[in-house]
Amino acid sequence: MTTTNSTNDVSLDVVADLAAQLRVDSIRSSTSAGSGHPTSSMSAADLLAVLVTRHLRYDWDEPHVPVNDHLIFSKGHASPLLYSVFKAVGVVSEEELMNGYRRFGQRLEGHPTPILPWVDVATGSLGQGLPDGVGVALAGKYLDRLPYRVWVLCGDSELAEGSIWEALDKASYYKLSNLVAILDVNRLGQRGATDLGWDTAAYAERAMAFGARTIEIDGHDLSVIDHAFVEAASHLAGDKPTVIIAKTIKGKGFSEVENSPDWHGKPFPPDMADRAIAELGGVRNLVIRGPRPELVEPGPALEHPTTLAPHSGTPAPSKDWPTYKAGEKVATRKAYGDALVTLGARDPKVVALDGEVSNSTFAEEFTLAFPERYFEMFIAEQQLVAAATGLAARGYTAFASTFAAFFTRAYDFIRMGAISTANLRLVGSHAGVEIGADGPSQMALEDLAMMRAVHGSTVLYPADGTSTVALVAAMAETPGISYMRTTRGSYPGLYAGEEAFPVGGAKVLRSGPDDQVTLIGAGVTLHECLRAADLLVADGITARVIDCYSVKPIDVGTLRAAADDTGGRIVVAEDHHPEGGLGSAVADALLAAGQRDFRLTRLAVSGMPGSGTGAELLAWAGIDAAHIADAARQLTKTR
Amino acid sequence: MTTTNSTNDVSLDVVADLAAQLRVDSIRSSTSAGSGHPTSSMSAADLLAVLVTRHLRYDWDEPHVPVNDHLIFSKGHASPLLYSVFKAVGVVSEEELMNGYRRFGQRLEGHPTPILPWVDVATGSLGQGLPDGVGVALAGKYLDRLPYRVWVLCGDSELAEGSIWEALDKASYYKLSNLVAILDVNRLGQRGATDLGWDTAAYAERAMAFGARTIEIDGHDLSVIDHAFVEAASHLAGDKPTVIIAKTIKGKGFSEVENSPDWHGKPFPPDMADRAIAELGGVRNLVIRGPRPELVEPGPALEHPTTLAPHSGTPAPSKDWPTYKAGEKVATRKAYGDALVTLGARDPKVVALDGEVSNSTFAEEFTLAFPERYFEMFIAEQQLVAAATGLAARGYTAFASTFAAFFTRAYDFIRMGAISTANLRLVGSHAGVEIGADGPSQMALEDLAMMRAVHGSTVLYPADGTSTVALVAAMAETPGISYMRTTRGSYPGLYAGEEAFPVGGAKVLRSGPDDQVTLIGAGVTLHECLRAADLLVADGITARVIDCYSVKPIDVGTLRAAADDTGGRIVVAEDHHPEGGLGSAVADALLAAGQRDFRLTRLAVSGMPGSGTGAELLAWAGIDAAHIADAARQLTKTR
Repeated sequence: MTTTNSTNDVSLDVVADLAAQLRVDSIRSSTSAGSGHPTSSMSAADLLAVLVTRHLRYDWDEPHVPVNDHLIFSKGHASPLLYSVFKAVGVVSEEELMNGYRRFGQRLEGHPTPILPWVDVATGSLGQGLPDGVGVALAGKYLDRLPYRVWVLCGDSELAEGSIWEALDKASYYKLSNLVAILDVNRLGQRGATDLGWDTAAYAERAMAFGARTIEIDGHDLSVIDHAFVEAASHLAGDKPTVIIAKTIKGKGFSEVENSPDWHGKPFPPDMADRAIAELGGVRNLVIRGPRPELVEPGPALEHPTTLAPHSGTPAPSKDWPTYKAGEKVATRKAYGDALVTLGARDPKVVALDGEVSNSTFAEEFTLAFPERYFEMFIAEQQLVAAATGLAARGYTAFASTFAAFFTRAYDFIRMGAISTANLRLVGSHAGVEIGADGPSQMALEDLAMMRAVHGSTVLYPADGTSTVALVAAMAETPGISYMRTTRGSYPGLYAGEEAFPVGGAKVLRSGPDDQVTLIGAGVTLHECLRAADLLVADGITARVIDCYSVKPIDVGTLRAAADDTGGRIVVAEDHHPEGGLGSAVADALLAAGQRDFRLTRLAVSGMPGSGTGAELLAWAGIDAAHIADAARQLTKTR
Repeated sequence: MTTTNSTNDVSLDVVADLAAQLRVDSIRSSTSAGSGHPTSSMSAADLLAVLVTRHLRYDWDEPHVPVNDHLIFSKGHASPLLYSVFKAVGVVSEEELMNGYRRFGQRLEGHPTPILPWVDVATGSLGQGLPDGVGVALAGKYLDRLPYRVWVLCGDSELAEGSIWEALDKASYYKLSNLVAILDVNRLGQRGATDLGWDTAAYAERAMAFGARTIEIDGHDLSVIDHAFVEAASHLAGDKPTVIIAKTIKGKGFSEVENSPDWHGKPFPPDMADRAIAELGGVRNLVIRGPRPELVEPGPALEHPTTLAPHSGTPAPSKDWPTYKAGEKVATRKAYGDALVTLGARDPKVVALDGEVSNSTFAEEFTLAFPERYFEMFIAEQQLVAAATGLAARGYTAFASTFAAFFTRAYDFIRMGAISTANLRLVGSHAGVEIGADGPSQMALEDLAMMRAVHGSTVLYPADGTSTVALVAAMAETPGISYMRTTRGSYPGLYAGEEAFPVGGAKVLRSGPDDQVTLIGAGVTLHECLRAADLLVADGITARVIDCYSVKPIDVGTLRAAADDTGGRIVVAEDHHPEGGLGSAVADALLAAGQRDFRLTRLAVSGMPGSGTGAELLAWAGIDAAHIADAARQLTKTR
């Protein structure tokens, strides 16, 4: 075994040898696993060999050193190449590469995930690594203020994803000269030629139009590659991201498959693998590390193009949590903005992003208080979530907000965020038919179902300002994907400032020894439940009212007690489609707890709403106080 | 009232008058509604006045005439302008405009929906109208083969959405010279300046790089606008979409608000509205129609860049439904491809699209049989669903397929498809942990929850080839959004060819008079349930087994009968996260039907999977036969 620990002195001859090793190991690992993408790895092997030996500044023994560069495989299916790199730098063994890749219980998964300490974000859903990299680069330039670079290997197929262009748009807007996208243009997708094939000039034109500096190269000429990386790195102090467009050959190095459309995502059978390895000069076990980063202190704060200047009347941010009087009308979205400012004042790691609706979500308050920690993502919800993911990978507590309906745009990114084990705080405003006149395109009616189904997620839906503030604070401490749904309209405060709102809890707002029925709401429907309880008094019906502010996890103890105490009569009202939301959460919890003797009336938005006032639409949907009271009356008539 | 019915002879003086009317009516309607976007309407009023009087070929009395041009407001929030246009052509009355806009129960909703006969697709979630328009233009050029044009008004804020660039990429790839995007570059978004402001050259550069012909204009110079539209229309026979970049002023025509960032999405108070109307020369009631389309026959078939040439061995498509032997192993994704070919042979309106994975989803079979009716969307799932939406708007029966996991990328488009009342057939392959080695990024584990929560959706999940074929046929007849989940692996056929599989049905595969427990599965877990029933025989436990192939609507009758017959003991196993999928569907149905005395054990994927074999992962997740049998044993131990 040849071991070289170098800073910048690995000769291109050695690099060539290493490139062959990366190809051979990509073939061997995928053949041994019986699946994987050797040809998509081979096209980029030269690029990676040059990068890791001579340019990537990385302390492989200390992957969490803040000054390390970042390497993101946006083309996550080239995992054999990435893992072969890990072998080549000596952090993954031959044994693990050959017996761990794509195997059950092992960490070398089919597509990279941060279960590996050298991986920032999970990839494999195409078009996400570059947007995530924008988040990492934002952190590097404006928050960490360290000279690390973010190198992102992209496939050419994924350049058809709009999210790639959202990423370049933001990268140029934010002058992310620390971001280098390396496009591996091997011409071939899964089932044939890509849209643009080898038209690298077209890619360059697009990248340039989106504000990047571009370098077109032969992706198999080591010297040319080396020069391109030198040039990319030399522009760190500049104001543009770099896009290197590398023309490559899929399956490069094995003449039987080079440039063939028939070998996507297929391991070579053992006999072919043997021929390929022979053609590539046999198995090698070079261990070579490239340069380590210099340990430097953070640089000076840089201005970034924040789009809002503080108003003259903007109050100085306070570390005291905002408080609201019981009965005082406040919109939960407003309380979100208020709480976020306090969070920001208490913790410099808190950052915020929004999708160009910050004056609706009230993220604007944070923008005005902490412009340097706010990143406007404009109308690009995929990039909004991806940037938060990248910032989270750098340890920031990122809150991302937009209309709740528009988080549907980013569902794939949220799903991948969970696989990335990213701590993401998402806040969606203007939920449900309550928003009124704008109509169904702006009404989130699927968000609770969507967010509950995310692995390990937390789903919160406060009904007043006080609980919103407490839950925003809780989100900052909550790992994984947490989601808060806020409401457009202003409703009376229900709680005093000192009340605790643990995640997984619920509040019993009305209760007595003779409760006949339980009314469960969250957000706007909690207020309708309270009004319904008032209406029911006239019928001599006493109702328990529960604020189910934590939709996931849900307070099964409170739900069971209510079922037991109220003869199993439960009405749930939610401003959401009938499937997968609050009603499902209640039903699922009670059934899972073995509760059997209950009758659940679920009121939800089952039709397609139009425009109207919030009150008209709540009534139309059958989720207002009158309908809740009716449902309660029906339940109490039967035994 | 002045009424002009013209073909092409409306003078620009009259157009100017009409433009003023459109502004005035945008102001009046939004002020009267108390909400809406007058300033975003005013910036585009000149563009629309020229378009509808002199260029849009449209028979307003016959909106469904196939030769009509199409007008799509991608910036759906400019609905006051669209509805003012409808008044100006005489199809919406003054009364409706003033008293119907944004009101409950009325059709002039906050954002346009196809409840109006002149609207093709719902808009309001930005960045969707242009992608939808690509679908309409594909239909026009390659299927309808009619010389209609698709005019799409885009806002500049929405140009930050990646979906816009997916759309232009596909528009140029498919040479959609019948598509004209009109960019209303008014510089201002909701909360301030857009990313690029008035840098119309940057937009032009981007659009050109994405393959469009571009025309930069002053969006308030009627003569210049007119010339641009003439030029756009003159290129119908060409091979590029046209993008007109119009520099405009938000609020144009009312000096108090022109170019102000403070007037987004706000109606003017009555006194301001009065001043604005006065400045614009007062209320008008012109009714002017532009040219009608010539009634022509479809032109000759045009080749489009299908990416697969039929193999020499491709069989001629048959109108006979494919059949599979009971016990014969076939993947449901393969049966999907087989069935789609038959559908295509039986109905020339059937078209297919895929996201560059047609050799995995088996849409490839259709591609080879009917290349002229297949549209490759490459790795751009948003555009995949949007194109299907546009094709559906033109009456085509569009099936769109990709990996089930990647439909999460298009959730906002699916949600909007429901608002569009589009008939969309979505088919997602490679669902769940069953896929094995590729790992979690490729595993759909949220898709059933996501699709169930869509308004009016149908969710199907067949377990064998025969049922897949029957359900693909059913999807072609099913209105609204229908979704089929297919499986990667091959499993034994369960049904004979003549079996019926109605949407909303279920199949009882094992049953007897002494059944002690019910096992419910769908797709891969049905096969595990059958194996579990076999295992339980050794314990003397007889299990009923139900194939719940229709997840939404679900067969509540079969479920209730099973609950009644098996002592309320039910095990549901699903290859999906625990929330919102099959288990929730079963629980929701039983509870809604008033079933009370049942105990439901739900087995689902609650952890984060890694790689492995399908069998290893089904076991790890606790959804294989052994775990199902264990759960059944536990249930039968208790009463």
